Amino acid sequence: MMRIPFETMCAQFERVLESRDMDKRDAVLCARLIAETSLEGVYTHGANRFASLIKGIDEKWVDVHSHAHKSDSFGPLERWDGKRGVGNLNAHSCMKRAIELAKEHTIGCVALKHTNHWMRPGTYGLMAAKEGCIALLWTNTMPLMSPWGGADTKVGNNPLVLAIPSEEGPLLVDMAMSLFSYGKLETYVREKKKLPVPGGWDEKGELTTNAESILQSKRSLPIGFWKGTSLALALDLIAATLSGGRTTRSIGSLPEEGEVSQVFLVFDISKFPDQEEMQREIQATLEDLKDSTPLDAEKPVRYPGQFRERTRKENLEKGIPVDEAVWNTILTL
Amino acid sequence: MMRIPFETMCAQFERVLESRDMDKRDAVLCARLIAETSLEGVYTHGANRFASLIKGIDEKWVDVHSHAHKSDSFGPLERWDGKRGVGNLNAHSCMKRAIELAKEHTIGCVALKHTNHWMRPGTYGLMAAKEGCIALLWTNTMPLMSPWGGADTKVGNNPLVLAIPSEEGPLLVDMAMSLFSYGKLETYVREKKKLPVPGGWDEKGELTTNAESILQSKRSLPIGFWKGTSLALALDLIAATLSGGRTTRSIGSLPEEGEVSQVFLVFDISKFPDQEEMQREIQATLEDLKDSTPLDAEKPVRYPGQFRERTRKENLEKGIPVDEAVWNTILTL
Repeated sequence: MMRIPFETMCAQFERVLESRDMDKRDAVLCARLIAETSLEGVYTHGANRFASLIKGIDEKWVDVHSHAHKSDSFGPLERWDGKRGVGNLNAHSCMKRAIELAKEHTIGCVALKHTNHWMRPGTYGLMAAKEGCIALLWTNTMPLMSPWGGADTKVGNNPLVLAIPSEEGPLLVDMAMSLFSYGKLETYVREKKKLPVPGGWDEKGELTTNAESILQSKRSLPIGFWKGTSLALALDLIAATLSGGRTTRSIGSLPEEGEVSQVFLVFDISKFPDQEEMQREIQATLEDLKDSTPLDAEKPVRYPGQFRERTRKENLEKGIPVDEAVWNTILTL
Repeated sequence: MMRIPFETMCAQFERVLESRDMDKRDAVLCARLIAETSLEGVYTHGANRFASLIKGIDEKWVDVHSHAHKSDSFGPLERWDGKRGVGNLNAHSCMKRAIELAKEHTIGCVALKHTNHWMRPGTYGLMAAKEGCIALLWTNTMPLMSPWGGADTKVGNNPLVLAIPSEEGPLLVDMAMSLFSYGKLETYVREKKKLPVPGGWDEKGELTTNAESILQSKRSLPIGFWKGTSLALALDLIAATLSGGRTTRSIGSLPEEGEVSQVFLVFDISKFPDQEEMQREIQATLEDLKDSTPLDAEKPVRYPGQFRERTRKENLEKGIPVDEAVWNTILTL
């Protein structure tokens, strides 16, 4: 593990993106979003995924010249077409638009079709929370899990994000419907570690803590067993219906994951007369959680997103931890 | 287990509710909603819970004379005050209003504060789906789970519903953030059965399949371990913030669960030009799921809500299965 300064990481990403004919302004934003993901400690979805974005561009799955544009408008809800453009840039413009719609109508929603992997889902939740808004957003994916009681891979792991503004910085829940994301499983393989609890089935259909077996079988364990696949199915069908885009089933018919459907839903709570009172109640809830009696005296209870700012500050000072092999690959791209 | 005709069940519920001074029209609707819950096979949240509703009325937690009313309006989003009225009647009027708002604005949302337990969450999702709408709705609850890594009960199990219209009848996901709802745990206790997988911790902090131990410790296992409590926390804070109502922490300061916060969010998809095409894609996804190779040859894969209509028809014909003790208690109320 080495540490790379934030600016160096941004510059390397920009260099590679521009070498793939991405417009300078797009490259700067795309690079920053990915570098900030690692900066804030979500290593699975930042630098670790950069090479797969470039692979998508090189193999023409991701079109660096396409930009999401509005295809239909229904008051507070708009449909956008991602035109197979860069996933994080498309998601960034759709979240920006959903925030504008929320500022106008209290609720704003952009449903995006035919886009690519948005890298770190939480990025767009944080955008809304920093504007004083609550956000719910999700994406569908290619098939990655088996329906409960079934052997075939048919359900996406469809990450879901909920973001809430709070005084200490946004509360952020960013979770796939599988117990471990594929990015996380890849990290366990790279670090040659066992999963702390069984995370899926191996090729023989046995529950396993071996991340590599799960990546091979593509049979990741859904959260809450039967509940996770039901939730994933509903999120998939809602994203496809609202956007007029592809379902997980339909994405599965493509040779690679692409043309996914996403929903960006925003509530502008700055309009509410009791906003300050509710902020105090949010704070009280978070303090109450942190005050929990810990099961392990050395591991105090924390809330989701609590250490983001601390990690960000530490990585800004010391550089961002990156696996040496990952960084060396980026340098050769 | 005995079988009671649907009409008899409605009549008994109405009798009891009217004996508690509930208005005749309210009693008819309240009784029907509860009886239909059992009729459609959700026994945990129908007749089994009727006695606890009456207890709430008798102990003045539930005010049969109160009705939810609009307290503030922000275009497609309205805030309603449940005034500690009957939970299912309040939820019914708020979902009705959210559907109206969606018909007008494409998205409609009612955030309800100070209401009581809504009995079966799915009831209100089905209302929206039968009107051709997609619905997302959730409630917060009193503290029922421990935050991940903590020993104290501080997080609600905050049931979440997603409903999607489909040709065969609505797809309905209705799930608490605990692996097993407390209603389900109570059923396992009543039927003297072990849980199929560990569902929580006992008083000693050990994972257990004994439902009674979990009811005693109040330490139910969240879905996806650390993920379920994060999701529950976010749903709690969003419901309280949007409605201006109580958080789980604040509900926990009351002597009994009450004054909960709920969100009813509806999308009117009948406005979309490609609605028929999307219905075909939903159908194709459901058929594809049912076609999965089952792990157990005698248990075909099903989608959430698939057997609701069949159960409804069977129970209409043969009567609704009710535990004899539960029914006898209802007769004495």
